[in-house]
Amino acid sequence: MTGFAPLAARAADLLAAVRRKRPRVHCLTNTVVQKFTADGLSALGVIPTMTSNLEEIGAFVGRADAMLVNLGTLDRDRRAVIETATSLAGERRLPWLLDPVHCELSPSRLAFAHSILAKGPAVTRGNTAEIAALAPSTGTVVETGEIDRLRSGSARLAILNGHPWMAQVTGTGCLSGAVIASFLAVSADAFEAAAAAVLLMGVSAEVAAAKSGGPGTLAPNLLDALATIEPSTLASMARLSDA
Amino acid sequence: MTGFAPLAARAADLLAAVRRKRPRVHCLTNTVVQKFTADGLSALGVIPTMTSNLEEIGAFVGRADAMLVNLGTLDRDRRAVIETATSLAGERRLPWLLDPVHCELSPSRLAFAHSILAKGPAVTRGNTAEIAALAPSTGTVVETGEIDRLRSGSARLAILNGHPWMAQVTGTGCLSGAVIASFLAVSADAFEAAAAAVLLMGVSAEVAAAKSGGPGTLAPNLLDALATIEPSTLASMARLSDA
Amino acid sequence: MTGFAPLAARAADLLAAVRRKRPRVHCLTNTVVQKFTADGLSALGVIPTMTSNLEEIGAFVGRADAMLVNLGTLDRDRRAVIETATSLAGERRLPWLLDPVHCELSPSRLAFAHSILAKGPAVTRGNTAEIAALAPSTGTVVETGEIDRLRSGSARLAILNGHPWMAQVTGTGCLSGAVIASFLAVSADAFEAAAAAVLLMGVSAEVAAAKSGGPGTLAPNLLDALATIEPSTLASMARLSDA
Repeated sequence: MTGFAPLAARAADLLAAVRRKRPRVHCLTNTVVQKFTADGLSALGVIPTMTSNLEEIGAFVGRADAMLVNLGTLDRDRRAVIETATSLAGERRLPWLLDPVHCELSPSRLAFAHSILAKGPAVTRGNTAEIAALAPSTGTVVETGEIDRLRSGSARLAILNGHPWMAQVTGTGCLSGAVIASFLAVSADAFEAAAAAVLLMGVSAEVAAAKSGGPGTLAPNLLDALATIEPSTLASMARLSDA
Repeated sequence: MTGFAPLAARAADLLAAVRRKRPRVHCLTNTVVQKFTADGLSALGVIPTMTSNLEEIGAFVGRADAMLVNLGTLDRDRRAVIETATSLAGERRLPWLLDPVHCELSPSRLAFAHSILAKGPAVTRGNTAEIAALAPSTGTVVETGEIDRLRSGSARLAILNGHPWMAQVTGTGCLSGAVIASFLAVSADAFEAAAAAVLLMGVSAEVAAAKSGGPGTLAPNLLDALATIEPSTLASMARLSDA
Repeated sequence: MTGFAPLAARAADLLAAVRRKRPRVHCLTNTVVQKFTADGLSALGVIPTMTSNLEEIGAFVGRADAMLVNLGTLDRDRRAVIETATSLAGERRLPWLLDPVHCELSPSRLAFAHSILAKGPAVTRGNTAEIAALAPSTGTVVETGEIDRLRSGSARLAILNGHPWMAQVTGTGCLSGAVIASFLAVSADAFEAAAAAVLLMGVSAEVAAAKSGGPGTLAPNLLDALATIEPSTLASMARLSDA
């Protein structure tokens, strides 16, 4: 772990920066997890906006500091707004994250995910099946699972923090994507932003699990941890590895 | 506080009346907070209905005792159903509340909010930015924030109850609007209905915060408080002021 | 209760089978309860999918082990996807459950519910008003309320487990439908699958209520119970009756 101390210290600094800056993050995300995502960002001190309405998307993206693009519960209207929003983000050089939810389950969704990936997200985040199906080759790639793995070019990082109950709470992966997007608003280095955000989720899950009786109570305790965890605790609890 | 004792006592009576009458409140609200809103009303003893389907709206409004119109996650279909529902409410003299969510962020949403405001809500509720953008001049106006402020004609009331974690739980403002709508079903005086509802939310937040470790656990504890708080506790914990 | 010991033991076995098999259950359900439904199934060890997109529904139904069809927040798009999905389920002999939410409140929804009922769900679940309006005469019928009642042909069963706070948590009925659908994936006998699922919900509610301060905290504690309750506890706490 010694070799990773600077990265852990940097993560602590970025957490403090997110809470201080209070960035506005526009979340194009699936209807299932909108409230949980907004609650997670609000707990962290971020200001989430959530509209998926095509007529309004320009006004909301124009005020955002970063953006989340999550492909869950995808339909025709959602595809149109995602196409417009990612083009606007490119024009504004707004950093954004792509979460290709369930792209391995539907050829139509995979094709759409490829077309959005081509627009250049700073980070792509998915589980093992999603990342294997999409095979992103540019930007920072975050593959979450029992161990979370990050890569960018030749850089590699494994984050060992977390708790198995996380997999039983719908939307923790989606929230993870939104938290990474939030950290993109305070760091021009997408790899370190993603590392800090994923570390925050894993450490918060450990803190929350110690107070919980199962995945049901884990969820509110996780939000408490996102709101209250000290940056120094984030650094001291970090379990990082290359691999 | 002495001068406000009758108002606090009236709020306690209205809370008891809501639980006794169990009004049916139709909620046209954004997809993000539908479950939290329905849970809050159910905890309170109110029967929420939530459909936004144009074909069905007549049947649901026809059975409602009050209505919530919240402009979050607004799209074309939602605009159409809101226009129809507010016209039906006018014909039936059904009391309703307008919550012009994020109307300050999008010119298209602000214009729509003005057109709906013209149809005569009993109460308009928003945060400072929303109320400043919309500038409602009729009915009761509730501006929620660190201090909640009510006005109607020349009447003024400030409610000092509440807790900062409320601002970190997505949808507490939206739920506040739904709770006010519920109280409109038991009082023809919109100002006192709104005062009672806002007071209930603030006192419940204080009761909940004492049991919580952050905004995550505040949310379920807030619902518990809405379900279990005694009317007499509501009156005794009230902190009211003109201001 | 003696005469029901085999049924309670069978329910315990089916709970163990669900957790072992981890079936994939596709949920066509209303937007209000999608997250709570997915969380409940995930807690139980089931893999929920939730898309309502017509273009993707074939791919998702094609991989599912059972399906939930819930008529809440019904609109034109949702009607179309339900028609397609139930036809596909018929072709694939995939077991599915119909939950005709609020069909008693809207003639248009009742007519649609009848057309879907004609496609042969293994189980129909509703509250007293919904079952009275729909009057299903084939398959297993579950009427949930203070006492949950099951019937299939001449078979009758009453399940006395549960807690009044359940009625104040939006979506416990909808979750109940999703849990029944999950048990259909591990038993070809729809009546015993439904009995096991309804028993699990009722016993879990009792376990959760003992740790809760109201309906707000009941919800996360219910999810904990779904994740952690021992099959033997399910059998020993069962309160069954013919009636």
